[in-house]
Amino acid sequence: MAIQKPSIPKGTRDFGHIEMARRNYIFDTIKGVFRTFGYQEIQTPSMENLSTLLGKYGEEGDKLLFRVLNSGDCFSGIDIPSYCVDGDCYNSKALSLKVCEKGLRYDLTVPFARYVVQHQSEITFPFKRFQMQPVWRADRPQKGRYREFYQCDVDVIGSRSQVNELELVQMVDEVFKKLKVRVAIHINNRKVLTGLAAIAGAPDKVVDITVAIDKLDKIGIGKVKEELADKGLSQSGIGVVEKILSIEGDTAEKISAMRKLFQGTEEGLKGLDELEELFGLIEAAGVDAPVEMDLSLARGLNYYTGAIFEVKALDWEIGSIGGGGRYDNLTGIFGLPDLSGVGISFGADRIYDVLTGLDLFPVSLEQSTTLLFAVLGADELRYVLPYAKALRQAGVSVEVYPDAAKLKKQFEYAQRHSIPFLSINGSTEMESGTINIKNLETGIQQAFQASEIDKILEFLK
Amino acid sequence: MAIQKPSIPKGTRDFGHIEMARRNYIFDTIKGVFRTFGYQEIQTPSMENLSTLLGKYGEEGDKLLFRVLNSGDCFSGIDIPSYCVDGDCYNSKALSLKVCEKGLRYDLTVPFARYVVQHQSEITFPFKRFQMQPVWRADRPQKGRYREFYQCDVDVIGSRSQVNELELVQMVDEVFKKLKVRVAIHINNRKVLTGLAAIAGAPDKVVDITVAIDKLDKIGIGKVKEELADKGLSQSGIGVVEKILSIEGDTAEKISAMRKLFQGTEEGLKGLDELEELFGLIEAAGVDAPVEMDLSLARGLNYYTGAIFEVKALDWEIGSIGGGGRYDNLTGIFGLPDLSGVGISFGADRIYDVLTGLDLFPVSLEQSTTLLFAVLGADELRYVLPYAKALRQAGVSVEVYPDAAKLKKQFEYAQRHSIPFLSINGSTEMESGTINIKNLETGIQQAFQASEIDKILEFLK
Repeated sequence: MAIQKPSIPKGTRDFGHIEMARRNYIFDTIKGVFRTFGYQEIQTPSMENLSTLLGKYGEEGDKLLFRVLNSGDCFSGIDIPSYCVDGDCYNSKALSLKVCEKGLRYDLTVPFARYVVQHQSEITFPFKRFQMQPVWRADRPQKGRYREFYQCDVDVIGSRSQVNELELVQMVDEVFKKLKVRVAIHINNRKVLTGLAAIAGAPDKVVDITVAIDKLDKIGIGKVKEELADKGLSQSGIGVVEKILSIEGDTAEKISAMRKLFQGTEEGLKGLDELEELFGLIEAAGVDAPVEMDLSLARGLNYYTGAIFEVKALDWEIGSIGGGGRYDNLTGIFGLPDLSGVGISFGADRIYDVLTGLDLFPVSLEQSTTLLFAVLGADELRYVLPYAKALRQAGVSVEVYPDAAKLKKQFEYAQRHSIPFLSINGSTEMESGTINIKNLETGIQQAFQASEIDKILEFLK
Repeated sequence: MAIQKPSIPKGTRDFGHIEMARRNYIFDTIKGVFRTFGYQEIQTPSMENLSTLLGKYGEEGDKLLFRVLNSGDCFSGIDIPSYCVDGDCYNSKALSLKVCEKGLRYDLTVPFARYVVQHQSEITFPFKRFQMQPVWRADRPQKGRYREFYQCDVDVIGSRSQVNELELVQMVDEVFKKLKVRVAIHINNRKVLTGLAAIAGAPDKVVDITVAIDKLDKIGIGKVKEELADKGLSQSGIGVVEKILSIEGDTAEKISAMRKLFQGTEEGLKGLDELEELFGLIEAAGVDAPVEMDLSLARGLNYYTGAIFEVKALDWEIGSIGGGGRYDNLTGIFGLPDLSGVGISFGADRIYDVLTGLDLFPVSLEQSTTLLFAVLGADELRYVLPYAKALRQAGVSVEVYPDAAKLKKQFEYAQRHSIPFLSINGSTEMESGTINIKNLETGIQQAFQASEIDKILEFLK
């Protein structure tokens, strides 16, 4: 029987050791920053009950959920012919509900909401958590879009204070400073957009207005006004939008000018208060990345209720590499109302692409072993083992070549694995009780006594 | 509509922040040791093609695979009535193959074999890799057995040298020294068992003989002989087993005595050679944990072909907390024959239970934030923000309470989160340009100037 060359499901990936080192570099950097802000890691199961997931991501999301077949004789006894209706044999949506109770995690937000409700009695609010786990979506795979990918979410729930928004901005700033990626942080506020739509006389057209504003840089004010007219905005409404867009000055001046136009729109004024407070806190705390108020930010308008964030790389064209916002009723879907939360998600795969594109991964990530002991024979092997042990216990990554293979082969192994130091020891070293270590880059080699572990550590630096 | 309190699928778990800190402590310790031996991390997808998984774990394993329903209209057009045979409506095994192409990873070994074959052209052998990822099994959940759990596997493939076995023993030794768990490492060899069965005249009864030997301590030699007789071993065969079991002395003496009895069994002698070499290497390298030759080790007799390992905690009753062995043809199932490998798996959940039972988790794992800035009002908040920023950049985990809540509430927050230092700053501090920090354990408090970050870091130690 011919054996087929194995493969993996489309849209999934294997990660080799260099990719893993790079991914861990990103994850560890982000985690390190989260920790200095007191955010704590939690994990939830890969599988959730479908009742937890269904209906939370819209009709399209339901279709993209990976469903897990019930174990055992799951088809036995089901009246399958009844799922054949009007020639549709068999209705997959209905039938899958009969044979699947569980689905794979689609994002980290809904499981987090479920977690908070389920564990509310153990949690002290405000609850600051982060979560880095894979999610699965049955999307059509394409370049940069996978069916299994990691999300890195950080949220605080149970506090309406703008200090939380500030901390998210600060964390974004710190993460990308550590990764050496220049970013701009864009901030909008859902309540301001609501206010804008209200004073434009079109409270039902928040999305249309925001989407049109988003095109300002590309198409100019004339075309934006055309689009607003096409969407049914009145001439006076279009005039209001134009007035808002023409406000000049820094953020404080813009907010102040908008405040005058927003008189009478309670929610809009509340949004301006929030933005003003947040920008004041950002100034007081000191954030290095540019932070801009951006009325065109249309992210998550269906669920965000306050601040909206988006992070853009300044030196690499890739769209958003992070974003989030405030949601006032996340846990309401599971029966726990009135818990306001705010969070941000880092796009790990896109950050990976930016670091690759800008060549920002530290070269040291490619090197994992520091020193290779080549092996000439059984006695020589036994001779170096205690050295290898002592160096490992001092934290050095050491390999002992497992066979007395030809030196050329052992040398090639060191080269292919980017191992910078090689130690070859024969009768000379064994008789003098030393080991010989060579720096493969500089060619410098040196002999050390068994008692000179500190000197060896210095040489290996 | 009443909203049901949410839950998670049986056999799965949420991990709160303290559990996560403890689990990460175990994983990070193991990873750190793997790295000092030059093993490199890889990851494979959570979903594999069912064709990769089916038939690799026996009939029982096939039943325990979680299958993922194909996305889209997966039932449409399937001739389902044809899956109703002799009143078995509908045959789940056959039908699930029609609607599921993918399954969740069942272990890390088969995906590793698949990885090696798929990426053979990129790999330099010997290939030393580790992998720590969840696996899923539709087992009946019970205490200590979960449907989603982590495996930590370390393997080297492409080398028959006993140096690899040595390294696995050394890594086990180092990991448990770091975790402060006393363990014994038991070693057996499949070839020796084959030899034993051969000289006992029952080459087909390897498993029966090994299982009977395993009961020696519990039931005594008399009952072991009875069991061997029940299993059909001849009187002379039983005599041979008894003779082997009565050999006394240290490992070298035992091997030497067995060698005499094994004359004529080529494979048995090869096994003794391997054991002798391995124990010689262990002595040369220096391993602190007790390492014992244990002929009763019956782990993985169906696939191991050389060394067999098992790790037992000495101070906590829990069975094996790690184990593995050598397999000569792991990748043969995917068409790449003659690649010998050896590996070991650490049982993360059991290690967690041992550390919990013996109270060995560092207390520091429960504390994540070092310093909480309490907040008295808007001005006081702005005043402390630059301090919080500077301390975070120095690596300290700092929280700023998000609201000017009652001090009692803020203080309780610090207590519930085991935050050891509290900083309360009002007009006095703002006027003098200082911040005040209190060690909540000792009660000692001190005021610091803005320029005294180093002094603050010292105080927080």
